[in-house]
Amino acid sequence: MNVIDVILTKRDRGVLSDAQIDWVVDAYTRGEVADEQMSALAMAILLNGMTAGEIARWTAAMIASGERLDLSSVPRPTVDKHSTGGVGDKITLPLTPLVAACGAAVPQLSGRGLGHTGGTLDKLESIPGWRAQLSNAEFTAQLRDVGAVVCAAGEGLAPADRKLYALRDVTGTVEAIPLIASSIMSKKIAEGTGALVLDVKVGTGAFMKDIDRARELARTMVELGGAHGVRTVALLTDMNTPLGYAVGNAMEVTESVEVLAGGGPADVVELTLALAREMLDAAGLPDADPAAVLAGGQAMDAWRAMIAAQGGDPDAPMPAARETELVRAEADGVVTAVDAYAIGVAAWRLGAGRARKEDPVSAAAGVFLHRRPGDPVRAGDVLYELRADDPARIPAARETAAGAVTVGAAAPAPAPLLLDRVG
Amino acid sequence: MNVIDVILTKRDRGVLSDAQIDWVVDAYTRGEVADEQMSALAMAILLNGMTAGEIARWTAAMIASGERLDLSSVPRPTVDKHSTGGVGDKITLPLTPLVAACGAAVPQLSGRGLGHTGGTLDKLESIPGWRAQLSNAEFTAQLRDVGAVVCAAGEGLAPADRKLYALRDVTGTVEAIPLIASSIMSKKIAEGTGALVLDVKVGTGAFMKDIDRARELARTMVELGGAHGVRTVALLTDMNTPLGYAVGNAMEVTESVEVLAGGGPADVVELTLALAREMLDAAGLPDADPAAVLAGGQAMDAWRAMIAAQGGDPDAPMPAARETELVRAEADGVVTAVDAYAIGVAAWRLGAGRARKEDPVSAAAGVFLHRRPGDPVRAGDVLYELRADDPARIPAARETAAGAVTVGAAAPAPAPLLLDRVG
Repeated sequence: MNVIDVILTKRDRGVLSDAQIDWVVDAYTRGEVADEQMSALAMAILLNGMTAGEIARWTAAMIASGERLDLSSVPRPTVDKHSTGGVGDKITLPLTPLVAACGAAVPQLSGRGLGHTGGTLDKLESIPGWRAQLSNAEFTAQLRDVGAVVCAAGEGLAPADRKLYALRDVTGTVEAIPLIASSIMSKKIAEGTGALVLDVKVGTGAFMKDIDRARELARTMVELGGAHGVRTVALLTDMNTPLGYAVGNAMEVTESVEVLAGGGPADVVELTLALAREMLDAAGLPDADPAAVLAGGQAMDAWRAMIAAQGGDPDAPMPAARETELVRAEADGVVTAVDAYAIGVAAWRLGAGRARKEDPVSAAAGVFLHRRPGDPVRAGDVLYELRADDPARIPAARETAAGAVTVGAAAPAPAPLLLDRVG
Repeated sequence: MNVIDVILTKRDRGVLSDAQIDWVVDAYTRGEVADEQMSALAMAILLNGMTAGEIARWTAAMIASGERLDLSSVPRPTVDKHSTGGVGDKITLPLTPLVAACGAAVPQLSGRGLGHTGGTLDKLESIPGWRAQLSNAEFTAQLRDVGAVVCAAGEGLAPADRKLYALRDVTGTVEAIPLIASSIMSKKIAEGTGALVLDVKVGTGAFMKDIDRARELARTMVELGGAHGVRTVALLTDMNTPLGYAVGNAMEVTESVEVLAGGGPADVVELTLALAREMLDAAGLPDADPAAVLAGGQAMDAWRAMIAAQGGDPDAPMPAARETELVRAEADGVVTAVDAYAIGVAAWRLGAGRARKEDPVSAAAGVFLHRRPGDPVRAGDVLYELRADDPARIPAARETAAGAVTVGAAAPAPAPLLLDRVG
């Protein structure tokens, strides 16, 4: 097998054979195919696409590059959730303990933020003592004992994906539906979950800007899950506006705890309950009542157990930013939009995210919104806060966020959060 | 400047700015842009194309990556020839001394063969003592004293192209017209020639299989030359059939010397004279008579001087192959075709070419044709010889060449060698 032939096949709009896919994924993982060869292939895949059959085989080859976890010792039905990434998207934090408190077990292998979207592990690491790395044995034990675990994926899971993801990130080949779908699904299938609910984000703050491409991605992933025996459903949800008021690691934890305490922003509560409903259905628990469990405090109990099991102190005070700048409305009116992308980039520049994967993140940095679309404002009211540890980060973020919150005379038409369901 | 933005611009069918092109070519040469990033960009260029303005700027950036030779001390007009590569294409060997003998100076910076096409330097290195490496001072001095020089390009000439060419070769991104055109023209413009004639090959044995793409490549290069003050003309010539009878390094030298002696295959003589005519016109010597100079022996004198100036012995016997296998006609008839690609690959496998750029080549290996299209044959007549130093190379070459020479009942329609002229 020759890598040039594989590249030329896709470059010239051909269909890769099963043998070509198996070989190239394996040879790349072993280092026999070089990064510059795989990136040329990735660009050809991005521009020329893949058939459903090619995507299925590519995903299977990525799963086969590592181990597949066996969760059969967990007595409850397992179900996981994956979001394609958004701004202020802290839903995993209240959702995982809520679904566990309803009777399922949630094996959440999460990632770190890259670019303008936040990462669940970065958020949880702002809790003093909490650790993201668990062995496979610890992971399974916590899933059995607590029913909820959010941690980093082990080295043994889909190593081909880890290598390819890092490559795509630096070669402009992230936004290829076949590669996004196979990346997400190879990890989720390998982690051993019995069912999966996907939250496919659509809008300025998402990787998918238009709903047709988001729907195509959702369909592709739902099919991949089914083909591997994982019951999979996808919700398409709005990401033109950040979720909630908090965009930044520690403050998103705080906002999540508010939801678990029965309060929190309406949109965060709505999406948490909608995803919980889907997860419990997919897990075969249609009679569970997540709204009642949230109101009854059992979700908060599960949260505290989950954080404590990984060394975190759920009662520790969260870190506060050293610098805060308030941005105020210049005129009276109604907030017409809060642009998720601009807010996400501003939070990233303040230190909430990283430019390269080895960069540290700031726990306290980010953007805290005081107003959301539809809220009335008066001139001089605070629209949002920029928070940073390093004052030198403020000016660039100020410039990025300028114009992200628009104020007009009339309230905007209400924008639904849930756009579609595929499954 | 960010390399990802550059890649995304081309990936999403945008036009690269002058600043983006200048930066990415320079940053790649310096190693700041990684191979995997440049290969993704090269694939996006191959699939999405470039405007004439982008190609011109890319070429200028590649020239600017190194030195541009100054040939103003050479008293004669300078003119060079470049072929896009074919099978049995030894035309540079008789052409360079012929044009020099007609009064021009020919600064030929040549390359080595890769894949199924031969390289001029590999051919000349089969002459005992001849050396391909000259300093810039030696190059200019020989051009002044002899008027003809064929040697390797120095390290200082278009280093961006050297690096990019090696990358394209292993990433399936060779066949992009913008990249082919800028690669050829950056080197030729940097070598300092005043005029240039391009031999753009079309057919099974060429990189361009169809005449429309070949014409597009020719037009692109002619424009690039003009924009840099190099008077440039292109001939489109047939490469469905090998040129002459000899396909292999030493035997192509022998065939070239036959042409210089006034004999040689009709097609090799025809193309040599046609290209000489174009070169002399481009050099401002329209009254020169290359046919008379060839017949008069002055071209042979220039050849001997050119070879001797680089340490070669023009009278030394050429190396002979240790193994020869004769392939005979199975029936009476007329040769209807000799497939250039199959013969080129067979010669390569016999040892005339290399698979990786660090491989050695065999001087004596190759395919020697006994019949060309239109020639009558009788069953048992030799159609061609396979020659190799290593007998283990014969079987694969035998298999590749089988069917390359077809024999039918009727003579094929005569195929013109000169297909078009762009300039």
